Amino acid sequence: MSFGIDDLPVRDELRGKSPYGAPQLDVPVRLNTNENPYPLPEALVDRIAERVREAARDLNRYPDRDAVELRTGLADYLTKTGSYRVGVENVWAANGSNEVIQQLLQTFGGPGRTAIGFEPSYSMHALIARGTGTGWISGPRNEDFTIDLAAAERWIAENKPDVVFVTTPNNPTGNAVPPETVLALYEAAQAAKPSMVIVDEAYIEFSHGDSLLPLLEGRPNLVVSRTMSKAFGAAGLRLGYLAAHPAVVDAVQLVRLPYHLSAVTQATALAALEHTDTLLGYVEQLKSERDRLVGELKALRCEVVESDANFVQFGRFADSHTAWQKILDQGVLVRDNGIPGWLRVSAGTPEENDAFLDAVRELMKEQST
Amino acid sequence: MSFGIDDLPVRDELRGKSPYGAPQLDVPVRLNTNENPYPLPEALVDRIAERVREAARDLNRYPDRDAVELRTGLADYLTKTGSYRVGVENVWAANGSNEVIQQLLQTFGGPGRTAIGFEPSYSMHALIARGTGTGWISGPRNEDFTIDLAAAERWIAENKPDVVFVTTPNNPTGNAVPPETVLALYEAAQAAKPSMVIVDEAYIEFSHGDSLLPLLEGRPNLVVSRTMSKAFGAAGLRLGYLAAHPAVVDAVQLVRLPYHLSAVTQATALAALEHTDTLLGYVEQLKSERDRLVGELKALRCEVVESDANFVQFGRFADSHTAWQKILDQGVLVRDNGIPGWLRVSAGTPEENDAFLDAVRELMKEQST
Repeated sequence: MSFGIDDLPVRDELRGKSPYGAPQLDVPVRLNTNENPYPLPEALVDRIAERVREAARDLNRYPDRDAVELRTGLADYLTKTGSYRVGVENVWAANGSNEVIQQLLQTFGGPGRTAIGFEPSYSMHALIARGTGTGWISGPRNEDFTIDLAAAERWIAENKPDVVFVTTPNNPTGNAVPPETVLALYEAAQAAKPSMVIVDEAYIEFSHGDSLLPLLEGRPNLVVSRTMSKAFGAAGLRLGYLAAHPAVVDAVQLVRLPYHLSAVTQATALAALEHTDTLLGYVEQLKSERDRLVGELKALRCEVVESDANFVQFGRFADSHTAWQKILDQGVLVRDNGIPGWLRVSAGTPEENDAFLDAVRELMKEQST
Repeated sequence: MSFGIDDLPVRDELRGKSPYGAPQLDVPVRLNTNENPYPLPEALVDRIAERVREAARDLNRYPDRDAVELRTGLADYLTKTGSYRVGVENVWAANGSNEVIQQLLQTFGGPGRTAIGFEPSYSMHALIARGTGTGWISGPRNEDFTIDLAAAERWIAENKPDVVFVTTPNNPTGNAVPPETVLALYEAAQAAKPSMVIVDEAYIEFSHGDSLLPLLEGRPNLVVSRTMSKAFGAAGLRLGYLAAHPAVVDAVQLVRLPYHLSAVTQATALAALEHTDTLLGYVEQLKSERDRLVGELKALRCEVVESDANFVQFGRFADSHTAWQKILDQGVLVRDNGIPGWLRVSAGTPEENDAFLDAVRELMKEQST
């Protein structure tokens, strides 16, 4: 055997592990990573080129370390699209919501501390916990993937976690968490010990319900994290952000790498914010396609989790990996998140969704024979 | 007092701390952060706009997670400008060399492990150690800021660090570390326990000597970190990278946040790599300006550390903060790194350097009366 990872002095908990990431396969229809299927409109592509050109003229200088213009734009967007006023002092941005969460765990988690998430959920929460030395507690969910509040409260009281993750709409299951549940979890967390509650709203723009931003009022230990990857159709941009009490924004600056957000990232995000209305138009189309997927999958006698996101979890299959492969054989890549019996499909364009539904139709026909 | 950081459940070691960062003051001549004073040439600005426009067309998709095209370009650059062949499998890139170092410490440092650096040096090494839960050992230097090899070997043998940092040319002092010293430190580190040696070559393109890349041959526990911030005049881009054994590149992928490097960052960096020759021309101008600064400061009867970087450490002042302020009063911002008696000036354009030298001339006149 040639010299490999385990021949290096890597940390013990990394030995034998593989990097996170969906397989990147070259197939006609990719519905596996919850990307927005709509390319940015050409006017926005032009505007990005223009703003990046401007930024490039100063590229020899460090970027604005505090990204004030961008954070102001994000605050305005949250205020405009929600029912709660958010100011620049409430907002922090980083390279993807993954980096936002990493900064939060470096600040409020880390060695000797623990975080809890209710699984299945976004698996990066646990992986970033590992990467930051934060202990991870995998909390329970009901059979139907809702959070079992009584059990969750018990787990929080017993484990006294420093950080509580609530993903709503939840990934990969798609269901939203009722505000009362989030409030109860916040109360339970504070009763156990002073601790942070991170509400991951990466998919909130696709929800039938509203953002939980208004819960920030009077709750300085609550954080709402968001992203431009999905609703803004900008997964390639890697722009995540959070809204919280200004003290939280101050606190993450103790661990953020200085100048973490490049001038080109800031310029591109600012251009995208100028085109919010167009991009939110695509969101409406995707919501109606998502609802169609739910309806048609049910008609095909699949089980479906009601979805508030831009993806749908469907099943159940005796062998979900085989089902995944059979759908792939028809040129459609969906996601096997390792939840026995279930697969996840991202809402694509109408044509992509048709191709997916055709593939499932074939699969169900086979299964019933 | 209003609600602040210390009212939140932040980690104990963050209490009472302030965020890292040089003051960003609006003055005519800014020579405080070792930025390259030359804006990118207009042809490169055009090329960046063009490549980012292309990337923006796919921005709804996640970027290439492994940044293969960019890493290939960086490997070619290292091979072309050095005397050692580097392949894509040897190179890893991230958002600034700060993120490269953070990933290395998450992989090879972290809770229960320690890192050593010889101070004064790049202060982010210690701060990123803190942010990743890695214990920090501040190793010794001689009065003249060279590394005291005998003492360093003793410290390594006694402390058995998991990670050893060597910054060459050193920041903020400017002096390069002889290859024999780096080799001896590597041997000492391996003798103490299997451990990683990170050679931070952020300023190597400005050195009178050569990169230490050839030392990678047969030394899988050695890492050389580099950046496009200085020689490529792209501090705003935040593109750092490393060269090492392929196993190291595999290992950091266990902790890197997936899709950490945005499509716009990758596109901009690729554009800059196309213009390497022009940018290295500016490096030659800066080296000669740096040498002029050293000469003229000596002529003004300053003490100067011989510099292999794009900055010069000079002194000595009875009160370096007062000296800093007096230079600032004349419209020139230099850096006070808190090293008693010394200040640091970045090499600017000839006009900026003249303004700086005039300010120092005034200061020295005052001091001698």
